[in-house]
Amino acid sequence: MANAGDVLLAERSGGVVTLTLDRPDQFNALSEELLDALQDALAGIARDEDARCVVLAANGRAFCAGHDLKQMRSKPDHGYYRQLFQQCGQVMQSIVSLPVPVIARVHGTATAAGCQLVASCDLAVAADAARFAVSGINVGLFCSTPAVALTRNVAAKKAFEMLVTGEFISAQDARDNGLVNHVVPLDELDAKVAELVSAICAKSPLAVRTGKSMFQRQRGMQLADAYDYAAGVMAQNMMAEDVAEGIDAFMQKRHPVWKGR
Amino acid sequence: MANAGDVLLAERSGGVVTLTLDRPDQFNALSEELLDALQDALAGIARDEDARCVVLAANGRAFCAGHDLKQMRSKPDHGYYRQLFQQCGQVMQSIVSLPVPVIARVHGTATAAGCQLVASCDLAVAADAARFAVSGINVGLFCSTPAVALTRNVAAKKAFEMLVTGEFISAQDARDNGLVNHVVPLDELDAKVAELVSAICAKSPLAVRTGKSMFQRQRGMQLADAYDYAAGVMAQNMMAEDVAEGIDAFMQKRHPVWKGR
Amino acid sequence: MANAGDVLLAERSGGVVTLTLDRPDQFNALSEELLDALQDALAGIARDEDARCVVLAANGRAFCAGHDLKQMRSKPDHGYYRQLFQQCGQVMQSIVSLPVPVIARVHGTATAAGCQLVASCDLAVAADAARFAVSGINVGLFCSTPAVALTRNVAAKKAFEMLVTGEFISAQDARDNGLVNHVVPLDELDAKVAELVSAICAKSPLAVRTGKSMFQRQRGMQLADAYDYAAGVMAQNMMAEDVAEGIDAFMQKRHPVWKGR
Repeated sequence: MANAGDVLLAERSGGVVTLTLDRPDQFNALSEELLDALQDALAGIARDEDARCVVLAANGRAFCAGHDLKQMRSKPDHGYYRQLFQQCGQVMQSIVSLPVPVIARVHGTATAAGCQLVASCDLAVAADAARFAVSGINVGLFCSTPAVALTRNVAAKKAFEMLVTGEFISAQDARDNGLVNHVVPLDELDAKVAELVSAICAKSPLAVRTGKSMFQRQRGMQLADAYDYAAGVMAQNMMAEDVAEGIDAFMQKRHPVWKGR
Repeated sequence: MANAGDVLLAERSGGVVTLTLDRPDQFNALSEELLDALQDALAGIARDEDARCVVLAANGRAFCAGHDLKQMRSKPDHGYYRQLFQQCGQVMQSIVSLPVPVIARVHGTATAAGCQLVASCDLAVAADAARFAVSGINVGLFCSTPAVALTRNVAAKKAFEMLVTGEFISAQDARDNGLVNHVVPLDELDAKVAELVSAICAKSPLAVRTGKSMFQRQRGMQLADAYDYAAGVMAQNMMAEDVAEGIDAFMQKRHPVWKGR
Repeated sequence: MANAGDVLLAERSGGVVTLTLDRPDQFNALSEELLDALQDALAGIARDEDARCVVLAANGRAFCAGHDLKQMRSKPDHGYYRQLFQQCGQVMQSIVSLPVPVIARVHGTATAAGCQLVASCDLAVAADAARFAVSGINVGLFCSTPAVALTRNVAAKKAFEMLVTGEFISAQDARDNGLVNHVVPLDELDAKVAELVSAICAKSPLAVRTGKSMFQRQRGMQLADAYDYAAGVMAQNMMAEDVAEGIDAFMQKRHPVWKGR
């Protein structure tokens, strides 16, 4: 694992991993180094069978300003850019395919690939002063890879308007359009994130992992294929000790005790 | 047709079939017997050329509590579970592929596969005290098959939050998120359902059948394929006597008289 | 280019092309002639490298009443109908695949294929008195081709309700359900459309064209394919002079000067 400490902080408390973007003076722009660090951290969590969920947070005033324009501008090479956007897309897809849920904790502005990060997470909570934009268009660079994530959260006309105007939308607007789950005052942000974390950690770890994975995989399938896949997943899930315990506890009106995995 | 009377009531009035889940003491849990009865009833309606639409209702306090956990727990066998979830997915897909519209009349709580039933219907009206959850996660069983139907109605982050927390949402929230069409006080529920039924029965039966089928089939297609398919369907629809009558009536500012099929 | 003047007005101001449906006495019904004129006009704009965006407007009280029922009724031939709906689908897909954004300016009622026109545009602004319906069902003709466009904007249950009841929804309802971006009083309609046009024309023409095209193409792709495609598009976009200028201007806190293409 790369020394992520420079640009990304990773903290683990119980099964909860908090990844904190830590380039506050660059508005947490996703430099190559930060993308590397994120990829490594996500790969580590994917291998960690005791991980329960991930919180993606950021230090400083902004949540994330997207790609590091200065770094990009300094290497005007098509092959380099292609590789960079592939790497960024890989990070986003690693969030989607991670075996545990990822919650974005959005305290400030999320722009371009920063907005894409939020869209790529399973859940998102925003402070009411947070704002969202896919603003590459303002520098002549249409937010193409962010569009992929955005259009899988937000209806077409709204998404296109954001992409072609580059304008900010408020946290409330983001919630009303499916980009975030909850909007709260900044001083309640941690409590709201903790509430989701607690809800997840109170469930059977196996069931959460089963669900995260099946939820994302079935999204692109045809209806019949999705049902066939889901039936197989659910039958497998039913054989787990946790389900026997869960149903017994439910019938006995007591709290279940999960096996842990 | 199985003797559905034990767990499912079927009533026919003109072309309107009302199917009523009738296991009130088990909160209308979808036992094998009830799934069988639903499958048989839907197959019968699919063959009934005079059927115009279906209302799916339920007796007792709840609308439907999902699978019958007690029955499932008593048969801990992977093959059995796989077959059971396949059967349930088949019932849901039979609603989707039924040649006539299906309206869910949701007077009470709809949970897990009960929520999936609502999501699988073409239209849904809920009483304002109805609540919705995909709560299998609470017993260690992620609602994988319900997720298939839910994500085809509700935006991704909202759907995932429901699935991973298992928490209830209100009828109003269900409407704002696309799971139901209308929310009304309980004592206006029948009137609102009747309004939709009347609207449907006032149309050309052929046009409604054409539309129900094409609507569902085109959803998973690529744009060009969907247009090609739709153009063929619509050209066929144009050749019907009902369209000649419909257009003539429209131009003569009178009510059309449909042929009936 | 056909002499479009009879049924379609085309005006060009700078890079902005305004197409105005001009069959006011027929509520701008999409006759064969009008569909031909639209197709020709769109083909011309597709070849015009200096076009920046398109406004689709209409004269008279209605925006567009859909197909010309009288003309259709006069030619009861399956092959003719099939060709007509193919032609209409082609016009709609030409809007989607046009290299520049298309904004619907909806001042009045948009019905059936008229509603489909709005759904097919990238952006839409409606006057608050505008209304929307897919009302073919009222004459026995389910709006199958409009359903294709509608369901790619509006959630399933809402879309099906509109299609099967044929009832009008208000402009506000259309906005809340993703069919239009903005609703304003009629006397502010031109100003709001102009605001979107200005926003688009202030961007790099190359970036806007890149974005319009990639946005629409990636919508039907699987996630991994969409990311792969988007990374390639974005790397190409990065090589443009406009991006160098855009990033430099951004860093120097000045307005960029685009190359123009």
